[in-house]
Amino acid sequence: MLKPLLALSALAAAVPAVAQTAPPAAPSPADAAAADWQPIPDSELLVMTLRGGHQVYIRLAPRYTPAHVTNIRKLAEAHWWDGTAIYRVQDNYVTQWGDPTEKKPLPPTVIENPPAEYEWARYDGVTSFARPDPYAAKTGHSADGWPVATDGKASWLAHCYGMVGVARDMAPSTGSGAALYAVIGHAPRHLDRNIAVIGRVVEGMQWLSALPRGGGSLGIYENDADHVPILSVRLASQLPEDERPRFQYRATDNVRFAAWLSERENRKPPFFTVPAGGADICNAQAPVRRAP
Amino acid sequence: MLKPLLALSALAAAVPAVAQTAPPAAPSPADAAAADWQPIPDSELLVMTLRGGHQVYIRLAPRYTPAHVTNIRKLAEAHWWDGTAIYRVQDNYVTQWGDPTEKKPLPPTVIENPPAEYEWARYDGVTSFARPDPYAAKTGHSADGWPVATDGKASWLAHCYGMVGVARDMAPSTGSGAALYAVIGHAPRHLDRNIAVIGRVVEGMQWLSALPRGGGSLGIYENDADHVPILSVRLASQLPEDERPRFQYRATDNVRFAAWLSERENRKPPFFTVPAGGADICNAQAPVRRAP
Repeated sequence: MLKPLLALSALAAAVPAVAQTAPPAAPSPADAAAADWQPIPDSELLVMTLRGGHQVYIRLAPRYTPAHVTNIRKLAEAHWWDGTAIYRVQDNYVTQWGDPTEKKPLPPTVIENPPAEYEWARYDGVTSFARPDPYAAKTGHSADGWPVATDGKASWLAHCYGMVGVARDMAPSTGSGAALYAVIGHAPRHLDRNIAVIGRVVEGMQWLSALPRGGGSLGIYENDADHVPILSVRLASQLPEDERPRFQYRATDNVRFAAWLSERENRKPPFFTVPAGGADICNAQAPVRRAP
Repeated sequence: MLKPLLALSALAAAVPAVAQTAPPAAPSPADAAAADWQPIPDSELLVMTLRGGHQVYIRLAPRYTPAHVTNIRKLAEAHWWDGTAIYRVQDNYVTQWGDPTEKKPLPPTVIENPPAEYEWARYDGVTSFARPDPYAAKTGHSADGWPVATDGKASWLAHCYGMVGVARDMAPSTGSGAALYAVIGHAPRHLDRNIAVIGRVVEGMQWLSALPRGGGSLGIYENDADHVPILSVRLASQLPEDERPRFQYRATDNVRFAAWLSERENRKPPFFTVPAGGADICNAQAPVRRAP
């Protein structure tokens, strides 16, 4: 069995894992120091439980989309998503969820159309990466691990795989946050700057990405019977303390993360013979792990 | 129901479909002329039938990886994949298939390690696009619709979503073609120039992308019972003529395709307010459709 296992393992030699599961074999300058792992606060972690008990964990980005995240917290506190569903799965695009009937009233404190928050009018700088791509003059990471793109004056979160955004109607709708989607294919970066990005799936992605695709051209499930029921959505901070899942993000503004990026940009022999010399921001998403 | 439908349709406003299914509402400079649609020869179309009768259609790229495609044709002619399986599904990476035991002897005419064919040492030119990205000095399309990247001296096929490559062992293995994989997540462009790319899934992608993810870190199915059986793999040319599926690719070396690309680079109101001004090659894959 050696050959296929080698082929398989070689093929996966540099695959990113959202949650780091195994310590590296030998010390490397790319290894995180203990202090590089920072806690994701309980109020920034959404736990979505689907039929069958499958759980999807979403890190929220209140620093970048505060009004939308405030809405999302209120919706979670009101248990608003309980009994709603995943109703759309479009191949190489998004899985989307919420209330497909749109009859369910929003909680009174939820703002129907918050400020857009599609980008922020400043350049915070990005760590290490600073690479242009077809969509941005510069891409990189925020210090707290988000994929950021910028034109030097404005900055925005990039629609990488697993990032979560706010479904909306035509302007002036900005989306309340009651309908959300996660990217399940090649990063649709044309959505950047046009839609509010509120977080990232950090665990449980397969429960969104491995769903049957909807039959219509938009991937909408044509039969209500195909909807995947959402049992509950809670902030970790709403759960009993001993039940809270705890995650950490890897800080990026340090030489160890720079070395990690460099390794992704120049994959090594024996499997790789031609290093790329660069990497797309969405192929270099900063790691997140369960707190040990 | 108007609002969610609008939100849903707006979100999908510019979604690429591998196979065009609906004619555009009004004439556009981006519309293909009838002659822009070129037939994919029967000898360049692989039909993989999975348990349940689900079919995956793969366009082959013999012009770019001739030796590997020759092997693949021989494997198909020998019905070699019949009874093999999909044995690995790794989230945001690949679905891989073949013989997981690697005990099944290859047909005698199949070359175990063909020439690498990871790139070709010339610059053919690309149509219209000619945009750099983190992985290549220039990306674009071949005239016959493949996503191509180049450094001006060598060229190679890009590992976009749905592209199919040859699993291999460490060098000097180049992979016979008996074990293949399709990209089911963000394009792993670091694999470019390091592995032979032999084609693209043009229909039936969901039967590869919506599979349960394997439990191990590499996505390998840990139990043989989870393998997805492959009933058969045939070239369209091996099928009775009246049973052959027929597909067309859209030619790219014309002003209409240039307009199509331009539309993808600058998505329009009312949904989009900030045009990207560019597009990643993997967000601009040339259309393929069933022959009408």
